[in-house]
Amino acid sequence: MFDLEKIYSKNASNMRKSVIRELLKLTQQPDIISFAGGLPAPETFPVEDLRQAADRVFTNSPMKALQYGTTEGDAELKAELIKFEQRQGMKLGADNLLIVSASQQALDMMPKIFLDPGDYVIAGRPTYVGTIQAIQSYQGKILGIPFSPENDGFDLVELEKRYERARRDGRRIKYIYVIPDFQNPSGICWSLAKRKALLEFAYRENLLIVEDAPYREIRFIGEHIPSLYLLDQAGEDRGIVINLKTFSKILIPGARVGWIIARPEIIGKLVIAKQAMDLCTNVFTQCWLAEYLKTGKIYEVIEKTCGLYRDKRNHMVKMFEKHMPKRWDLTWTEPEGGLFLWISLPKYIDTDQMIHKAVAEKVAYVVGSAFYFDQPEHNAMRINFSYSSMGKIEEGVKRLAKVITAEIDAHEAGPRGQTSVEGV
Amino acid sequence: MFDLEKIYSKNASNMRKSVIRELLKLTQQPDIISFAGGLPAPETFPVEDLRQAADRVFTNSPMKALQYGTTEGDAELKAELIKFEQRQGMKLGADNLLIVSASQQALDMMPKIFLDPGDYVIAGRPTYVGTIQAIQSYQGKILGIPFSPENDGFDLVELEKRYERARRDGRRIKYIYVIPDFQNPSGICWSLAKRKALLEFAYRENLLIVEDAPYREIRFIGEHIPSLYLLDQAGEDRGIVINLKTFSKILIPGARVGWIIARPEIIGKLVIAKQAMDLCTNVFTQCWLAEYLKTGKIYEVIEKTCGLYRDKRNHMVKMFEKHMPKRWDLTWTEPEGGLFLWISLPKYIDTDQMIHKAVAEKVAYVVGSAFYFDQPEHNAMRINFSYSSMGKIEEGVKRLAKVITAEIDAHEAGPRGQTSVEGV
Repeated sequence: MFDLEKIYSKNASNMRKSVIRELLKLTQQPDIISFAGGLPAPETFPVEDLRQAADRVFTNSPMKALQYGTTEGDAELKAELIKFEQRQGMKLGADNLLIVSASQQALDMMPKIFLDPGDYVIAGRPTYVGTIQAIQSYQGKILGIPFSPENDGFDLVELEKRYERARRDGRRIKYIYVIPDFQNPSGICWSLAKRKALLEFAYRENLLIVEDAPYREIRFIGEHIPSLYLLDQAGEDRGIVINLKTFSKILIPGARVGWIIARPEIIGKLVIAKQAMDLCTNVFTQCWLAEYLKTGKIYEVIEKTCGLYRDKRNHMVKMFEKHMPKRWDLTWTEPEGGLFLWISLPKYIDTDQMIHKAVAEKVAYVVGSAFYFDQPEHNAMRINFSYSSMGKIEEGVKRLAKVITAEIDAHEAGPRGQTSVEGV
Repeated sequence: MFDLEKIYSKNASNMRKSVIRELLKLTQQPDIISFAGGLPAPETFPVEDLRQAADRVFTNSPMKALQYGTTEGDAELKAELIKFEQRQGMKLGADNLLIVSASQQALDMMPKIFLDPGDYVIAGRPTYVGTIQAIQSYQGKILGIPFSPENDGFDLVELEKRYERARRDGRRIKYIYVIPDFQNPSGICWSLAKRKALLEFAYRENLLIVEDAPYREIRFIGEHIPSLYLLDQAGEDRGIVINLKTFSKILIPGARVGWIIARPEIIGKLVIAKQAMDLCTNVFTQCWLAEYLKTGKIYEVIEKTCGLYRDKRNHMVKMFEKHMPKRWDLTWTEPEGGLFLWISLPKYIDTDQMIHKAVAEKVAYVVGSAFYFDQPEHNAMRINFSYSSMGKIEEGVKRLAKVITAEIDAHEAGPRGQTSVEGV
């Protein structure tokens, strides 16, 4: 057989395997406590209501649900989603919506329709690994912007500085990618002031904003802050925000259904792209979710999920306070929503190295370096609090604290001590 | 708002709207008899068995089915598909299979991992429009090969000639794309000799073959001919064939589930690509179809479907013989399987123009030109026989014959007559 590497496209050669999905395989041994995944808590899945909704599809509209559907998405599901979004103040028509095979497909479509090889996207440092992968698979690049020390959004001084430098260097920047609500991986939620400032920046520089909002409804502390999409719509209404939503975190991920909200011209282009990608999203599932949404019970599920995650997040933070070494250079975010904490460790700890020790102690996390397009930080990790039970959270944090403490002790004992720990 | 056209990628600017999907919208008026779609007959959907299979998923494994799954695909579904393929003699392991969101996703993945802008794929003239769209969306190109007068596969003399010329012109050719069983749009089935010859050609020139086989099981006349994948596996076993399958034509399209069969190295690369595209295919649906396959009833569905399509195809051919003008330059294929006939009309008839007259007469087809990457033929059309009822087939063919007869009469009456027809 000839050399496949010579046949692959540059896109393919540029693709990077998902560290997370590889880690997930590693951590599927039952005795490992894994804080690595991004899995919602299965106890929030409304199994019986979903079963009944599916059954109604088989009774009422099987021939529609089992047949091909339109690329734009099922009209009934879209009508239900318009009602859902209206509760947060968004005004949408059917031509503002495209049903997609969950957020990751939307994240793949953005570089597909906007990026030529070498083009740039502005995004956080760190940012969601699936976004990095999608951009890389089209040979796009990321201009990374660090977050402010207040954890309220981008560091705006850095944004201006890095943007200016990139422009001076002739970089083509196509859009800004942000997760304003409880960012993956950091848990950071953007303040209203920072949201407005980002919108102004985008207006001034003629940039689109891709607002990825899978965790938006999963706020368990504090008040909702308007989305960038709504701020634009209720303000200058320039239509520069593309909003990405999904059922994965607010209902079930196994349905693989999400929706893109944008101005009709952009939706139109995305429809053409999607025709060539998969013709249409799973039709049966669209009908099924439309049936489920008609019951109005999703709001109860979201409320229950928020309550559960609040308890888990509080428990995890408490366990961190109880078990972790107390040091100025060991910190964690305390998010008001979402599924993740972000832990920053002393500079000399390399979480890429430490993961093997953690797995040996039967606890897993995602290495922080996975969330950087370039020049990764190595002294951080992402921790999921939604999936594990309360008991496992305590035990897992204990194990993690033990591993981290050993790293710190080894370092402080000097080279000899460090060698000894490594050698054991 | 700034000019979106300036922001779109070259990929996006190169995307072409699906003529078929646009036509489908046009023809959704209930009084139109549409031969335009590629829809399977809904009366073949085993609704009650599918309902029970879905219900078993809710009872037995809801937490797995509603959660995220692996990118590679559900292990139980893969095990069932391996058994399914074994009945045709294929020997497969789990690492030869990737579950995808139906064939169109597979068709999108091929140019994604193999084509750089300007790279070529060898494909039929005509060929499946969704493949053309996918290749265009990565700025790939197609080296079109006409079929032999015997309708038994490519014209091999033309293949050699066009391939040589393309090589001489410095074209980079990455793979051969074929639909050996009942091609869309022509209905052509490749003979065993032509299959072997194509394999030899690919061996000699170090080319991969993408064998798209959505209609393979829908053979209603004659004997199955081994797939290219099997011919390679049972022969020199060089692993150069990538086989694409789907449930869309043999069970239901609404599930949007297909599978790619290939050597493990290629599957591995496709898994990385898919991670960035949609993480995984609809998990619930995978579990549901696995449950359904366990019943073994899919073989009855396929048999029933083949019987029904045989009757419809025979009826349609009879109606063509009865109603169409009898001329040497008006011919149709008589396929032994699949869903489509291909009609060739006198050279002076432009089916792109004629479609408006057809729709006015309440009958629709797909314009032949949609199935060409470049230099389209304009005097052909694709006709679907799987979807319409027997009664509608007769009435639709009558209407179509009327429109075609009017075109011929107008042409033969000379310019004056033509003006008169156009003017009415």
